[in-house]
Amino acid sequence: MTFEAMWRDLHPVGRSASSGGYNRSPWTSAESELRAWFTEAALARGLELETDGMGNQVGWWRPATPEAPGLPGVLTGSHLDSVLDGGAYDGPLGVVSALAAVDVLRARGFSPSRPIGVSVFTEEEGSRFGLACLGSRLVTGASAWADARERQDRDGVYLGDAVADAGLDPSTGLLSLDDVGCFVELHVEQGRDLVDRDVAVGVASEIWPHGRYRFDFSGEANHAGTTRMEDRRDPMLTYAMTALAANKQARLAGQRATFGRLEVAPNGTNAVPSRVTAWLDARCSSDAGLAELVDAISRQGSERASRDGTQLSVTAESVSGSVVFDPDLARDLAGIGGWPIIPTQAGHDAGILSAAGIPTAMLFVRNPTGVSHSPAEFAEMADCLAGVEALADTLAKLAS
Amino acid sequence: MTFEAMWRDLHPVGRSASSGGYNRSPWTSAESELRAWFTEAALARGLELETDGMGNQVGWWRPATPEAPGLPGVLTGSHLDSVLDGGAYDGPLGVVSALAAVDVLRARGFSPSRPIGVSVFTEEEGSRFGLACLGSRLVTGASAWADARERQDRDGVYLGDAVADAGLDPSTGLLSLDDVGCFVELHVEQGRDLVDRDVAVGVASEIWPHGRYRFDFSGEANHAGTTRMEDRRDPMLTYAMTALAANKQARLAGQRATFGRLEVAPNGTNAVPSRVTAWLDARCSSDAGLAELVDAISRQGSERASRDGTQLSVTAESVSGSVVFDPDLARDLAGIGGWPIIPTQAGHDAGILSAAGIPTAMLFVRNPTGVSHSPAEFAEMADCLAGVEALADTLAKLAS
Repeated sequence: MTFEAMWRDLHPVGRSASSGGYNRSPWTSAESELRAWFTEAALARGLELETDGMGNQVGWWRPATPEAPGLPGVLTGSHLDSVLDGGAYDGPLGVVSALAAVDVLRARGFSPSRPIGVSVFTEEEGSRFGLACLGSRLVTGASAWADARERQDRDGVYLGDAVADAGLDPSTGLLSLDDVGCFVELHVEQGRDLVDRDVAVGVASEIWPHGRYRFDFSGEANHAGTTRMEDRRDPMLTYAMTALAANKQARLAGQRATFGRLEVAPNGTNAVPSRVTAWLDARCSSDAGLAELVDAISRQGSERASRDGTQLSVTAESVSGSVVFDPDLARDLAGIGGWPIIPTQAGHDAGILSAAGIPTAMLFVRNPTGVSHSPAEFAEMADCLAGVEALADTLAKLAS
Repeated sequence: MTFEAMWRDLHPVGRSASSGGYNRSPWTSAESELRAWFTEAALARGLELETDGMGNQVGWWRPATPEAPGLPGVLTGSHLDSVLDGGAYDGPLGVVSALAAVDVLRARGFSPSRPIGVSVFTEEEGSRFGLACLGSRLVTGASAWADARERQDRDGVYLGDAVADAGLDPSTGLLSLDDVGCFVELHVEQGRDLVDRDVAVGVASEIWPHGRYRFDFSGEANHAGTTRMEDRRDPMLTYAMTALAANKQARLAGQRATFGRLEVAPNGTNAVPSRVTAWLDARCSSDAGLAELVDAISRQGSERASRDGTQLSVTAESVSGSVVFDPDLARDLAGIGGWPIIPTQAGHDAGILSAAGIPTAMLFVRNPTGVSHSPAEFAEMADCLAGVEALADTLAKLAS
């Protein structure tokens, strides 16, 4: 099955008819369908399939005649889940390209001397339980199941229950990466660096430090009509000023700060809210810069809170430090096709595996608009196929 | 059954154990329980009960020996539904006080020469279908069922279906107010005017014009990490600035403007939102002032939108013009107990009946904090009982 045919297969899964965006949250029917699709695609290629107790999957292409048994494997892949109303490329492009690269290598008559694994990590986006890269965090031990299982989604469903309801059981074990020698993740670029450079493929140098912080603004519910403006303790005002301050702070410093998720209580038209909960996504080129950015936003929010008669408390829900990918590996890969080496501000499973000590690299495929996490996310088919060739060349080099 | 016993009866219905607030939205189990409670309370008093196809109810105390058959009736009552996470008093105080006032009049040996009706209008708060005073609007013809039935709640349920699911059928008819000569609604005060005046009871002069306006801010979803701040079209920023502008505008003019309800799409932590929908509740002492206030807020929002690369469209969902209650009736009632005559910024069924040409009055009961639409809403029991006496005196005067 060609790249194009696989891409057509995935097109309708979890797609919203109204927006054209995708809702492929983990342990939902859309994700079950994606897992079944990957299972079939792996088995159709004769890959040796492992599915672990969280739904993480790897299909292994083992050397036919292992000359040196026990040589560490080359893992490649990405994820199939999406953000809420996300795009088609973020995640699936890496999985489909990995399968297509296996096909290309076989068509070339390539025979690996190390195992090549095509992987799918679950809940990479953290769209449901708020912790990005959940699957790879659990597999590498960066997060513990005993803590993670207590996380709740927006409907109050515990992660432990959601996983069990999907027919999975983490106590049966998770993927082992002990035999993985290196990891390569191909991903659509989430920016326009490759557009500016006029090339289809790039290699990642590093991932910016980033984190998610919950801002709890609390005040006093009251009648929206009868309560004089000067008698209010309205947390919406504190939030609004904080959102504007975050934007300004990040803009001045060339960093990123976004309030994209919000919950208001009681969320009634004729009631001054009692509480606004907002999640800050912050990213910065250095760990120290990230801490300073979040401090500055928190401080401005608290100052406004004291003027509004409200309270603000800030909780770091997840913070990922700077990840510098293996520089030798990046240089080697860049040498294959003369690809540029560029940084990214987006988190990836590759960052988690890299932090766990596995030599890791990423390939990016050009995104003409730079838009991602949106129904408008896109890559040209010619660039996608160039990505497949680049990944095949990379795997050939690493698994020889 | 005394006022206190009725109050205790209602205390647990629809009450949130966590906040202590009430969720008594229409055509839910909590509201069914309240309707059953009122039915029992009316029948226990030998009142002649009418329940219409929307769930509006009246219990009539008919003159024993009608000297002048056909004399128009005196209607009193309020509503039993609440805002989301609202208080115990807004609505139920008027219904319970009306029943208690009937008891007081009977204990005094009073015999009415006109019918006295105790009424409960449904969905007064508009908490579920967004149109305040829905029951009284339909009864008076201010709104038409053919339009109203197409309204949807937050879960996409149509009003027509919700009413049918509750076992009601508007085609069987609505209450007729043809025989109603006047209406008196007792209500907890939603402000501190009576506190400042140091009296337990007041009479309403007028209701400020007010309206609900939907502000749709649209932009472009994108990745919260990789999208440079200057490349974004983030509707959250436009919203935040508009919320602050609304507050400032209302504060300077002694008016009211509140954004208390918000929906964000896709509402993901790591996505710049594509859309923010916010509802403005605006109130003003004059119709012209209200229009100017909303215009000014819309204009400032649109100016910011053009700077942010976003769009803003504003839709008036419901606008209620100024209501001046019958001045002769207000003066007559105020004369009974020397009660002050004060305005209110809150909408009420009394405003709808008044606009429909029924001479209407309101009695307010002191609220020590002024807080309402909140779990903290409160009135002292002594003041509630003073309200019952005041209402009994009022009904005695009007129904003699």
